[in-house]
Amino acid sequence: MGMTITEKILARAAGRDRVAPGELISARVDAVLGNDITAPLAIREFEKIGVERVFDKDRVYLVPDHFTPNKDIKSAEQAKEMREFARRQGLTYYFEVGRMGIEHCLLPEQGLVGPGDVIIGADSHTCTYGALGAFATGVGSTDLAAAMALGETWFKVPESVKFVYEGELPEWVGGKDLILYTIGDIGVEGALYQAMEFTGPAIANLSMDGRFTMANMAIEAGAKNGIIAPDIRTLEYVQGRTIRPFELFASDPDAVYARTITYDVSKIEPQVAFPHSPDNTRPVTEAGRVEIDQVVIGSCTNGRMEDLRLAARVLERRRVHAGVRLIVIPGTQEIYRQAMEEGLLAIFIQAGAAVSTPTCGPCLGGHMGVLARGERAVATTNRNFVGRMGHPESEVYLTNPAVAAASAVLGRIAHPGEVV
Amino acid sequence: MGMTITEKILARAAGRDRVAPGELISARVDAVLGNDITAPLAIREFEKIGVERVFDKDRVYLVPDHFTPNKDIKSAEQAKEMREFARRQGLTYYFEVGRMGIEHCLLPEQGLVGPGDVIIGADSHTCTYGALGAFATGVGSTDLAAAMALGETWFKVPESVKFVYEGELPEWVGGKDLILYTIGDIGVEGALYQAMEFTGPAIANLSMDGRFTMANMAIEAGAKNGIIAPDIRTLEYVQGRTIRPFELFASDPDAVYARTITYDVSKIEPQVAFPHSPDNTRPVTEAGRVEIDQVVIGSCTNGRMEDLRLAARVLERRRVHAGVRLIVIPGTQEIYRQAMEEGLLAIFIQAGAAVSTPTCGPCLGGHMGVLARGERAVATTNRNFVGRMGHPESEVYLTNPAVAAASAVLGRIAHPGEVV
Repeated sequence: MGMTITEKILARAAGRDRVAPGELISARVDAVLGNDITAPLAIREFEKIGVERVFDKDRVYLVPDHFTPNKDIKSAEQAKEMREFARRQGLTYYFEVGRMGIEHCLLPEQGLVGPGDVIIGADSHTCTYGALGAFATGVGSTDLAAAMALGETWFKVPESVKFVYEGELPEWVGGKDLILYTIGDIGVEGALYQAMEFTGPAIANLSMDGRFTMANMAIEAGAKNGIIAPDIRTLEYVQGRTIRPFELFASDPDAVYARTITYDVSKIEPQVAFPHSPDNTRPVTEAGRVEIDQVVIGSCTNGRMEDLRLAARVLERRRVHAGVRLIVIPGTQEIYRQAMEEGLLAIFIQAGAAVSTPTCGPCLGGHMGVLARGERAVATTNRNFVGRMGHPESEVYLTNPAVAAASAVLGRIAHPGEVV
Repeated sequence: MGMTITEKILARAAGRDRVAPGELISARVDAVLGNDITAPLAIREFEKIGVERVFDKDRVYLVPDHFTPNKDIKSAEQAKEMREFARRQGLTYYFEVGRMGIEHCLLPEQGLVGPGDVIIGADSHTCTYGALGAFATGVGSTDLAAAMALGETWFKVPESVKFVYEGELPEWVGGKDLILYTIGDIGVEGALYQAMEFTGPAIANLSMDGRFTMANMAIEAGAKNGIIAPDIRTLEYVQGRTIRPFELFASDPDAVYARTITYDVSKIEPQVAFPHSPDNTRPVTEAGRVEIDQVVIGSCTNGRMEDLRLAARVLERRRVHAGVRLIVIPGTQEIYRQAMEEGLLAIFIQAGAAVSTPTCGPCLGGHMGVLARGERAVATTNRNFVGRMGHPESEVYLTNPAVAAASAVLGRIAHPGEVV
C-alpha cells in the first residue's frame, strides 16, 4: 500500500520504512523556529531542562517579527531575552531588526527550509513551508523547548486529504482565493489534524508565492499541515538557495486519503472571508456595499513580491480613498528592497499608503495599524476572529492583495476590475 | 526703543503698536495644531465650551503622528476621535496615515506656517516653526481648545536672548550640534520663558533644515520660543509654498535683550548629549567607549532631507553593526518619497536598517523601537530624560544624524570621520 508525501517525510524523519495515520512517532526535526512572542517562553522551558546547548546551532531559527521594532517595553524585554539567548548559544540564524522579515516569508527566502524537511515552529503558520514539499507544523513553546534541546519531537501521523484543483485560474484569482474558497467549503475544522495535500493542474500552474499563501492557511481549516509535492517550480525556487541538501517526495498513486475533494477553479471568483471566521467566505461580487476604514497588504500570507506586484498594478496612478488608511508591509527586508527597486514602493507612496518595515504587526492586532471600536479593515492576512486586529467590535475582511488594493481606492470592498 | 522680532510679531497679533516683555496680551493666532495624543483632550474641552464650529476650518491642523499607524486599541480610539472631529468640523488640514508626516516636519513642508505667523500647538516642539521667522510655541490641550474656539489666546510676552554664532561650521557640524552646544552651555533652564533668537553668520549659512533643528530644540533650554529672522534662504523656502500671505519681521538694531551670547562655531565639534539631559553635552571625541544597542535617525528634530542625506553619506557601502538595530524614520511621506527617489532608502536598506513610515514613535518611547532595561540608544531626537525611549533603566544619547549613522556602523558612539 502506498504512502502520501506527508507519511513518507515523517517515516524518513522517524527512521522507519513506513508510518500510518494515527501512529505516534518520534521524529528528528531539520530545524525549529521561534519568534519574539513564543521563543522567550520556550527559552525559559529550555533552561529548566538543564541541557547546556541547543541540539544544533545551525538549526534553531529565531526571528523577532511580531512586535518589532519594539512596540513597548514588554516587547522590548522579550526581544532582548531572545537576542541574548541567541548570542549565548551562538545561533547562526538569529535575524535582527533591519536584517529580518516575517518568519514565514524569511525562512524560505533565506533557503533555511527545503523539500523533505521536517520543521516545527512555535507559530501556527509554520505550515507555510509545506509549499516547498516539507512537513511543517506549529507547536507550543514547551514542545519547541524540548525540540531545541533534543532535535526531535513527537507527532501523531495525520491522515491526508487530497484537494484537486482543476481548470484555469480566472484573472485576479490566485492562491489566496483558492485557499479561502476551500476553507469556505470545508469549514474551519474541515481538515482537523489532517494533512491538506494540494494537487492538480491549477496548483502546477500556481507561482511559488501563491503556493506559500495556500499552505500558510492550512491551519485555518484545522489542518496539521498543508503540503504541495515539489515540481519544477519548486526546484527553480530552492536550487542555489536552500542551504542544506534536500530530498524530493511525492505521494504514491495508491496512497490512501481520508477523502479527495475536487474543485474547478475556473468558476472561482476573488473571495472575501467576512467576519468573524476565515470560512465565512463569499465571492467579492456578492459582498454588497461594505465601507471600510483600513486596508492592510502584507503578512506571512500575502507579503511577498507577487502580492506587492498585484497591489501595485491596481494602485498605479490611483489614490487611496480619503476615508481609508492603507498600510503596506513587505514581508522581508529583501522583499522591501526588491519592491523599491521595481518601483512598487513608489507607487504605494504616491497612492497615499504607509509603507512599513517588515513586521507581523496589525495582522494579530500587535501594532502598526490596530483597529478602534467599530472600524472595518480589509486585510490580506489569515485570520479575522473577533478582535483579531484590535477592538472586539472591529471587523476584518480577508481578501487577496488585488481586492485589498481596489478596496483601498474605492473605500469599500471592491473587485479589482472596478478599478483597473 | 526698538523691538525684537518676537515682540514685533506678538504686537501685530495683539493689534498693538508695541508690546514689552512681561506684558500679558491677547493675540490672534494664525493657526493651531493638535496631534493624536493632545487633540482628543482638546476636543473634549472644546465641546464643553459650547461653540459649535472651530474659529476657522482652514487654520486648525490635526496630525495623527505620535502613535500611528495605531500601536494599540487605545491609540486607535484616540486617532479615531480626532479623525471624526475633523470630519464633523470639515477641517481642511487633517492629515491621514499614509498622507501625513511628523507634524513639525509636515506643517512647514506643506506651507501651513510662514514668516510672521503666530502658531500654537499642543506639542512642546511647536517652537520648530520659529526657523521661518514665526512666533510658535507649545501649549496645553485646554489652551488649544480655547484657541480652536476663539482664534486667539493669551501670552506673556517673553524677553529675548540673542545668540550670535560666528565663524564657519567645521565638517560634520550642523544645526543639531549648535543647539546641543548652546543648551550644554546655558542649561535646560538657561532660557526659561525667554525667546531664543538665533543670529550671526553661521546661521545665515545654515540650511533651512538645520534651522528647523535649532528652533525645534529651543524648548529644551526652557525657552518660550526659538526664532530666526527670515532671510533669502527663508524666502526661497516659503515662496510658492506657503498657503497664506506672510510678513517679514526683523529685530531692530536697538532692540533690548536680556543678554547676548556669542559662540565661535569653528571651535565646535559634533556634540553628544549624554543621559539623562539634553544639556549634558560633550564633544563626540570625548565620549569615550559607549557601546550601543539601537540607533534612531528621524523625529521632528532630524527627520528631514538634509538629515537623511548626511546619514546616507556615512552608511553608503557600509553595514550596520551586528549588535545594533538602526531605525530610520523619514519625517513625512514627501520626505520618504524623495529619499527613495534619491536612492537614500536603498542605502539604508542595504546597510541593514529598518526604514519606518513617518511617526514620532521611538522618540517618546511610543512604539517603533522602544528600549528594554539596560539598553543604550544613540538618537537624533530631542530628549533623553530617564525612560524617554522606554525602560527607566535605558539610556539615550542625542547626536546629529552623521554621528548616529557612524555609531550604527561601529556599534559604539563614533565620529563620522572614523567611518567615512
